[in-house]
Amino acid sequence: MNIPTIDLPRIVVIGAGFAGLQVAKKIDTTQYQLVLIDKNNYHTFQPLLYQVSSSGLEPDSIAYPIRKILHKKENTFYRLTNVEHIDTQNSSIKTAIGDITYDKLVIATGATNNFFGNDNIAKDSLPMKSLTDALNLRSKILGNFEKALNTTDLERREELMNFVIVGAGPTGVELAGALAELKNKILPNDFPDLDLRVMKIHLIEAADRVLAPMHEQSSEKAFKALRALGVHIWTKTFVTDYKDNLVTTNGDQSFRTDTLIWAAGVKGDFPEGITTEIGRGNRIITDDFCKIKGIENVYILGDAGLIQSERYPEGLPMLASVAMQQGAYLAKMFNRLARNKKTTPFIYNDKGSMATIGRNKAVVEVNTFRFQGFFAWLVWMFVHLMLLVGFRNRVVVFVNWMWNYFRYNNGLRLIVRPYKRPSKT
Amino acid sequence: MNIPTIDLPRIVVIGAGFAGLQVAKKIDTTQYQLVLIDKNNYHTFQPLLYQVSSSGLEPDSIAYPIRKILHKKENTFYRLTNVEHIDTQNSSIKTAIGDITYDKLVIATGATNNFFGNDNIAKDSLPMKSLTDALNLRSKILGNFEKALNTTDLERREELMNFVIVGAGPTGVELAGALAELKNKILPNDFPDLDLRVMKIHLIEAADRVLAPMHEQSSEKAFKALRALGVHIWTKTFVTDYKDNLVTTNGDQSFRTDTLIWAAGVKGDFPEGITTEIGRGNRIITDDFCKIKGIENVYILGDAGLIQSERYPEGLPMLASVAMQQGAYLAKMFNRLARNKKTTPFIYNDKGSMATIGRNKAVVEVNTFRFQGFFAWLVWMFVHLMLLVGFRNRVVVFVNWMWNYFRYNNGLRLIVRPYKRPSKT
Repeated sequence: MNIPTIDLPRIVVIGAGFAGLQVAKKIDTTQYQLVLIDKNNYHTFQPLLYQVSSSGLEPDSIAYPIRKILHKKENTFYRLTNVEHIDTQNSSIKTAIGDITYDKLVIATGATNNFFGNDNIAKDSLPMKSLTDALNLRSKILGNFEKALNTTDLERREELMNFVIVGAGPTGVELAGALAELKNKILPNDFPDLDLRVMKIHLIEAADRVLAPMHEQSSEKAFKALRALGVHIWTKTFVTDYKDNLVTTNGDQSFRTDTLIWAAGVKGDFPEGITTEIGRGNRIITDDFCKIKGIENVYILGDAGLIQSERYPEGLPMLASVAMQQGAYLAKMFNRLARNKKTTPFIYNDKGSMATIGRNKAVVEVNTFRFQGFFAWLVWMFVHLMLLVGFRNRVVVFVNWMWNYFRYNNGLRLIVRPYKRPSKT
Repeated sequence: MNIPTIDLPRIVVIGAGFAGLQVAKKIDTTQYQLVLIDKNNYHTFQPLLYQVSSSGLEPDSIAYPIRKILHKKENTFYRLTNVEHIDTQNSSIKTAIGDITYDKLVIATGATNNFFGNDNIAKDSLPMKSLTDALNLRSKILGNFEKALNTTDLERREELMNFVIVGAGPTGVELAGALAELKNKILPNDFPDLDLRVMKIHLIEAADRVLAPMHEQSSEKAFKALRALGVHIWTKTFVTDYKDNLVTTNGDQSFRTDTLIWAAGVKGDFPEGITTEIGRGNRIITDDFCKIKGIENVYILGDAGLIQSERYPEGLPMLASVAMQQGAYLAKMFNRLARNKKTTPFIYNDKGSMATIGRNKAVVEVNTFRFQGFFAWLVWMFVHLMLLVGFRNRVVVFVNWMWNYFRYNNGLRLIVRPYKRPSKT
C-alpha cells in the first residue's frame, strides 16, 4: 500500500464506524502515524438508517465523508479498500490495494447480519446495516406500492403490501413505527386509488416483549404505542423459514409477504487471520484493555470484540455507545503509552438507552430513571442530532424532522434505482 | 392497465419532465381523466444534475416524487412503467404493465444522448441525463482519486485524474466550472497526499466557441472565466473515438483519460410506433399546435418534438423553457376544447438563457440585454431555485449553496455504490 514510512509507530485502524472514528479523531498524530481503512469512503450513522428506508431522511444527511473528518490531521492517511487477511505473525495486513505493516492494529469492523444459518432468509430477506441496504429497502417499499396498483390478484396485492419485520430491538421498533406513520399519513395521499387497509405491518420478536433489553415498563409503553399505530406484534415467535414469499414461524402464524426485513440479529464481523478464542455472537474475546488475548499489539473494539474480564464477565452489549467509548479510551491509552504513562482498563459508562416509536413517542432510560412520551421524544431527537457528524448534517436532519412534524410530508420518496437483492454475507 | 374507465375523455401523458408535468398540473380534471406515465417515480430537475455529479447537491433535493405533485388532483392517475409501443390506429399504448387506450395522447419523453453512431463512446463515456447518471459520475470521480492514491504508475495516475468533457453547452460549461472548483478548493483538503496539479479538466467543443447558442460576448466571458479556473478549452475540435482510455479528435490533440463525460449532444427519444416524418435531431415533426402531422389526437412536446411551421421554420431549441411553455399551452388548449372554445397556435416566449461558470460567475442574456459576473450569478441562482419543484427542495438547495459559498465544503462526497458503467442507448 502506498503509504510513506516515517519515524513514528504506525497505528492501522480497520473500520470507520463509531469506534474506529473515535480512535482516528483522538489519537495524537505527533506521536503516531495513523492509517484508517474502510470499505466505504464515508462514516454511516447507523441509528438513523431506518429513516432513510422509510423516506424520512436523505442518505447524504446521515453519512459523512471520512476524508472530511480527517482534514487537518497530520500524519493521517485514509484508504478505501477491503481488508482480506491479517497476518499477526508478521504484523501485516493484506488488502485489495496491497499489504501494509502495523505497529499497533485496531480492528473496529463492527457487525454483520446474523441469519442463524438459514440460507433462504439470508438470500431473500432485506437487512438494514448499510446505506445501500437502506436505499434498497426504500426503493423496494415504494416500488411494491406501485406494483400493488397494477395487480388485480388480491393475494399478490397482499404480499406486496404486507411488511414483516423480524426483531423488535430499537431498529425493528423504530422501523415499524415509521412504516405505520407512512401508512397512516403519507401513503393515503400518494396512493388515493389503493386500499391501504390491505397494508399490514408485522413485528416478530423471539423474546417475550419488544425492546427486551430495556425495562419492562419501557417495553410496555412501546408495545402500546406500536399497537395504537396499527402494528401487529408477535412476541415469543421466531421465524423458521422464508420461501416463495411465505414466512413460517415456530408457532401457528405464517405470513405471506414480498418484503421480509431482517432486524433480528447481528454477529461480529472481522477479517480472517485472527486465530484466537471467539465468544458469544461471533465476537473476538479481549482483555479489559480491549486487546486480543494472546496476540500482541492487536486490539478489537465495538461489536466485533467481546471483553471478558472480572469486571465484565458477560462482556458488554453491541451498542454505539460502547463502541464510541472504547474508541476514545483506546486513543487515550495509546497517547499515554507514547508518553510512557501507565494504562488503565476500560470502564463503560452506561448512559442509558432509548428508542422512538414515532411522532411524539419515545422511551428513554437513564440509569434507574425512565420516561416516555413527548419529552422522551424530544430527548431522543436531541441526542441523535448531537451524535450526527457534521453541522450541515444536523441542520438538514433538523429541517427534515421539523418538516415532517408539521407537514407529514417531505417529498423524499424517490425510487432512485431499480431494486436489486443486495448481496448478503 | 388497471385504470378505471369513467365518463370523461382520457388524456394519457408519457413522461413527467418539464413538459409532461405542466400538462398534468394544468389540465382541468373535471373535464378529463388524466393518466401520467413515467419510468421513474420522480421528476428530475435536469439543469442541476451537474451539481449532483460534482458533490454540490444531494440527489433528493433536485428530484420530486410525481405522486406528491399530483396530490389532491381528482381523476388523475400516475403509473410507474415503460411505454413499449404506441398503436395510433387503435389509440392504444402498450406498456410493461398492460395496455391502455387514450382519447388524446401527449408524448413528452424528452431526449437521450446522441453519440453520433460511435459505439465505443456510447459504451464507455459517462452521460449526464438522469439522476442515476449523475450519481454514477459522482462515485466515479471520487473513486478515481482514491485509486490515484494507490498507483505508482504516473501514466495511470494521470488517466485517473484527467477529466474530459465533450460539449461546451451549458451542461459542459457548468460541470467544467464545478470540477475546477472541486480541484481548487475541496480536493486539496481531502487529498493532502495527492499532487493535484496532475488533475486536468479538458472541455472539448466542436463549434468555434463555448456556449455557442449565446451571444459572442457571453461566450467570451465564459471562456475567460473557465480559463481563469484552469480549464483547458479546445474549440473547433470534435471527438472521433474513445478506446483503451484514449480520446482521439479530428485535430492533433488526443487525451488519455479514464473519464470521458458526454455532454455533446442529445436526440429526441420516443416510444416506437409513431410512423411519421422525423426531423433534425431525431425529433418528430409537429404543426404549430404541437400535434403530430397526419396523426389524430397525438401531441408531442419538448425535446422529442419539432414544430415546423411558417412561424418557426427552423423549429424551437431543446430547452426546458420551451418544454414548460408547451406543456402549459397544451393543457390550456385542451381545457378550451372541453369548453368548445377555439384553439390558437403555440407561441414561444423566449425569456433568455444563462449559464454559471462557478462562484460569483455567470452569464445571462435576456433579449438584447446581457450581463455577467456576480449579479448574473445571483440571477442564475434565483431562477434555478424558483424553478425547483417543492418548497423543501428550495430550502435544502439554498442551504447547500450558502454553505458551499461560505465554507466551500458541504460534506456530500459519498461514494454510495460501487461504480458501474451505466447502460447506454
